[in-house]
Amino acid sequence: MGILVVGSFALDSVQTPFDKIEDALGGSATYISLAASYFSGPIKVVGVIGDDFPKSYIEMLNNHNIDLEGLEIIPGGKTFRWSGKYHYDLNVRDTLLTELNVFEKFDPKIPENARKSKFVCLGNIDPVLQSKVLEQMENPQFIVCDTMNFWIEGKKAELLELLPKVNVLIINDSEARLLAKEPNLIKAAKKIRDLGPPILIIKKGEHGALLFTEDIIFSAPAFPMENIFDPTGAGDSFAGGFIGYLFKTRDLSPDNLKRAVIYGSTMASFCVEKFSTKGIEELSYLQIQDRFRQFMNLSRFDEE
Amino acid sequence: MGILVVGSFALDSVQTPFDKIEDALGGSATYISLAASYFSGPIKVVGVIGDDFPKSYIEMLNNHNIDLEGLEIIPGGKTFRWSGKYHYDLNVRDTLLTELNVFEKFDPKIPENARKSKFVCLGNIDPVLQSKVLEQMENPQFIVCDTMNFWIEGKKAELLELLPKVNVLIINDSEARLLAKEPNLIKAAKKIRDLGPPILIIKKGEHGALLFTEDIIFSAPAFPMENIFDPTGAGDSFAGGFIGYLFKTRDLSPDNLKRAVIYGSTMASFCVEKFSTKGIEELSYLQIQDRFRQFMNLSRFDEE
Repeated sequence: MGILVVGSFALDSVQTPFDKIEDALGGSATYISLAASYFSGPIKVVGVIGDDFPKSYIEMLNNHNIDLEGLEIIPGGKTFRWSGKYHYDLNVRDTLLTELNVFEKFDPKIPENARKSKFVCLGNIDPVLQSKVLEQMENPQFIVCDTMNFWIEGKKAELLELLPKVNVLIINDSEARLLAKEPNLIKAAKKIRDLGPPILIIKKGEHGALLFTEDIIFSAPAFPMENIFDPTGAGDSFAGGFIGYLFKTRDLSPDNLKRAVIYGSTMASFCVEKFSTKGIEELSYLQIQDRFRQFMNLSRFDEE
Repeated sequence: MGILVVGSFALDSVQTPFDKIEDALGGSATYISLAASYFSGPIKVVGVIGDDFPKSYIEMLNNHNIDLEGLEIIPGGKTFRWSGKYHYDLNVRDTLLTELNVFEKFDPKIPENARKSKFVCLGNIDPVLQSKVLEQMENPQFIVCDTMNFWIEGKKAELLELLPKVNVLIINDSEARLLAKEPNLIKAAKKIRDLGPPILIIKKGEHGALLFTEDIIFSAPAFPMENIFDPTGAGDSFAGGFIGYLFKTRDLSPDNLKRAVIYGSTMASFCVEKFSTKGIEELSYLQIQDRFRQFMNLSRFDEE
């Protein structure tokens, strides 16, 4: 029954201190499904594009065993466009342009054969739409949800209604502080888990990620990177690697959740090494496992 | 021959959002020697105080098997005083007052019996004084050095002269970026190790610490703390735990350096739980080992 991914498909124009690119493949559903595709296929996606969306991108996604039946193409429509500029400190970016285009009226319709998917990844879109996706599912068993400050501030009530329905919430540290109205991350995590999601992941960018469940707190290191080429999509690649590995292993034990966090971090680390989705387009599973082991060497220590 | 610790002795007045305290025990040498005392005694200290320094503090340090022969007492002098205020975000603090007093003319004189110490911890003082300490040592084998932005900006040349003589430099992330003039921490670490110290530790506060040697990068997690009571002295407690454990085990292998970083993090985590030095005054070695294991559970993951 596979994984269902719902989110945005975009054409991104990105400037970094090192280079720039125009109309590159972007969007949360794109990164999530690509990252997850290395673990388990086919990935079903639901999203919307205009007929200006390059065929080469469609082909690349198809080649990753990503099922695009749920990808609506609006004739004469223009694909969602985002443009941003990263500063020398790559943690800081300015959004130069957001053209919602066909995404403005996106109303996710889950194809018949995707409604039985057991694992669902709700990319960062309006929580109202995320809820609409869940309403169409027949018996989802594991729901991973992303969101952002824009929705926490603008659609708080709708988000709070969604949270008890998801198994995992993935957000970054500033979003966690905003959602919980609490500067201490450990306290914030408790408050957020009380809002519904039994599993919470807080991404901290260059400082790694924290996993919170009822029983454990797990601190995942960040991969030490000398050259971050383009941070766009890192969080979505994390979510894709995380849910992909869990679907592949069908094991939701704390120890396996930890591994899934590291596989998520692994995919994020590959993502930022190249522009757009290039960093996660041509990997082998061996490369992924090799980096997983590098994460292990990075953080492992033993008693005497 | 034990460990020699050189640094400041201070009377601190600290305000946090939770409470405040006046003329509490402070200073880098105080925290370093207390933290190290749990691993190996006696610790010899060199510093200076006025005759206003409370006897109860002297007694407490003596009770920790800290040898105060090298602690100069200036008759009629006033002890170094620091006063600071922490914000609701405890990462931000304002210095309200710095009265150098007897510390202004501090000229470290190492007692005869301390000159043979093999392990030396140079607390955060003027790099000129740190060098003067090393000149008096007979055959030091392992030198740990702390510094801060004030010296990186104000005594750069003197610091650069010192660095090739130390084995370990411990600084925080903003100091590392400042010293290397490089925003990427991994690149900054390479540049700093090229300045001399073969072992570099970069402390990242609530995000843990990074250890860099020729062969490894090790990422240590931060202890998840809901209540940080007073961050003063955390870095010095880290240094004390680090050098104390290494002296106790006499093992400078990469695996043991990792453990020492965790013991340093352990002592820092105890330090911030209470005001002033209270958090590291009454620990048992069992408590310390127990927290070491909690650090292990926090960051450990395995392959399938």
